[in-house]
Amino acid sequence: MIRLFVTGGTFDKTYDEIRGALAFEETHVPEMLRLGRSQVEVSVRTLMMVDSLDMTDADREVIARNCAQCVESRIVVTHGTDTMVETARAIANAVKDKTVVVTGAMIPYAFGSSDGLFNLGSALSFAQTLPPGVYVAMNGQAFEWDKVRKNHDTGSFEPLA
Amino acid sequence: MIRLFVTGGTFDKTYDEIRGALAFEETHVPEMLRLGRSQVEVSVRTLMMVDSLDMTDADREVIARNCAQCVESRIVVTHGTDTMVETARAIANAVKDKTVVVTGAMIPYAFGSSDGLFNLGSALSFAQTLPPGVYVAMNGQAFEWDKVRKNHDTGSFEPLA
Amino acid sequence: MIRLFVTGGTFDKTYDEIRGALAFEETHVPEMLRLGRSQVEVSVRTLMMVDSLDMTDADREVIARNCAQCVESRIVVTHGTDTMVETARAIANAVKDKTVVVTGAMIPYAFGSSDGLFNLGSALSFAQTLPPGVYVAMNGQAFEWDKVRKNHDTGSFEPLA
Amino acid sequence: MIRLFVTGGTFDKTYDEIRGALAFEETHVPEMLRLGRSQVEVSVRTLMMVDSLDMTDADREVIARNCAQCVESRIVVTHGTDTMVETARAIANAVKDKTVVVTGAMIPYAFGSSDGLFNLGSALSFAQTLPPGVYVAMNGQAFEWDKVRKNHDTGSFEPLA
Repeated sequence: MIRLFVTGGTFDKTYDEIRGALAFEETHVPEMLRLGRSQVEVSVRTLMMVDSLDMTDADREVIARNCAQCVESRIVVTHGTDTMVETARAIANAVKDKTVVVTGAMIPYAFGSSDGLFNLGSALSFAQTLPPGVYVAMNGQAFEWDKVRKNHDTGSFEPLA
Repeated sequence: MIRLFVTGGTFDKTYDEIRGALAFEETHVPEMLRLGRSQVEVSVRTLMMVDSLDMTDADREVIARNCAQCVESRIVVTHGTDTMVETARAIANAVKDKTVVVTGAMIPYAFGSSDGLFNLGSALSFAQTLPPGVYVAMNGQAFEWDKVRKNHDTGSFEPLA
Repeated sequence: MIRLFVTGGTFDKTYDEIRGALAFEETHVPEMLRLGRSQVEVSVRTLMMVDSLDMTDADREVIARNCAQCVESRIVVTHGTDTMVETARAIANAVKDKTVVVTGAMIPYAFGSSDGLFNLGSALSFAQTLPPGVYVAMNGQAFEWDKVRKNHDTGSFEPLA
Repeated sequence: MIRLFVTGGTFDKTYDEIRGALAFEETHVPEMLRLGRSQVEVSVRTLMMVDSLDMTDADREVIARNCAQCVESRIVVTHGTDTMVETARAIANAVKDKTVVVTGAMIPYAFGSSDGLFNLGSALSFAQTLPPGVYVAMNGQAFEWDKVRKNHDTGSFEPLA
């Protein structure tokens, strides 16, 4: 059984057609698991629905505590890409002996052209096979949390030199 | 570097609008890797484009030989689901000391509602992390090739009792 | 109020993932009207779900009689493209003083890349504005039924010389 | 031949994955016409790419003058929904003896779930069949420009009482 914590981010942004702006509503994760015909046992819980640029230290503490306290030892966290590494650090400080994979998307799933479905399949697979530790999994790659940074010019994640 | 061999299957079926029927044209794998913004180094080669029900022993030999002879030690094979296990067996007989992940889809990628993108992200991740062996990876799960069968009533893969 | 009769055709083909083949299930028309946020009052009725190559004279009689007998004077018929013109002729023989627009698609709506949504918006608009008569509306154009043919090489409809 | 003027609006909003925000890039109209397999002769010209809430009187003058001066007598204008009616009024003041259809979308085409493709098929059809005048065409309906308003609570267009 894998625990999946939803925190928002581009992954789950949707389009509010009354206001003509991006917004958060319900998470798309259950729909994505259906679309992927996932046979993995996953228990989904939404912790918050925020843009990761708006995430506070208190929010990170909530995420880390949930990872530490849940019974599952294999965890996926969906998260905005901008501060994914900061949250991974907070989790690493709080969680031992569990495999935690933080993932997200560059394009909202609600857009047809999202990388979210690819990343979700990838993150669930890394969560089943990687040894205990905290990882950032984006675009087919998994990095240990303290060996990666987001390149804000290209939008992609790259190993720390 | 991961080697990806394309063999056809539902994964790559498309709709021929002149004939009004399913058909094979070019593989969608490179487009899917772009959509997933994959950062994994992948070398794609199309070996054949066939429905797996039409695949012959000679076809399986071609696939197994390519897996054995390529320089890469981590390999993904896209394949029709109906005879995926038979091909995995042929590969297992020919290949030692490599991680080979056979994957596919229940719905063509060309249909909006495909599980193919999810499975491709999953298969590339399993190929990076699983120890040497031949695996069938479908819908978020990876099975050793000799411990799985396709349930033809439900369409899903399940462990051998 | 517009009456919309569903008869099948490529427009409504779907992918049967157990059999790995094209199939007909329920019509997608109500979902397409929701997606288009259609505000047109439309009453949908499925008459049959067949490939138009399999349509018989008896089937055409059913369609023509329904067009003649319904209370609405503005009608859209979804239909396979291969014998669209034959059915339009049967309707023209049976129906006077109504605007009947026969439409379809080259690609199933269930495929992300369908022309069906474009054609549905077009057909509903032609049905509101064209004078009584029987028309074939495909790909943005409306033709009087006796002045059009399908070019089976290109798949598109063109005026009779 | 139909002239199609692009002005931006939700219809053409896209997602800027570096900034994580909605943005305007190139228009999607040519791609949408290809997807709809449109056989209508359409000449597309982008006049501006703006949110209609940011549209100025000077912008409206540019649109109206282009409608008046082009050689085509049948015109479609893509536009944001919030001030669609104001622009239709400006066009009506400047253009006589032409059929001008202003259309848009509630959801960006770049989102899989857009009403834009449906509206584009509809607007091109109304432009071919309606008598001279300026119309707002949304969600399957066409309104004379001075007999419609946008309901900002529901997001839909409705006849003036």
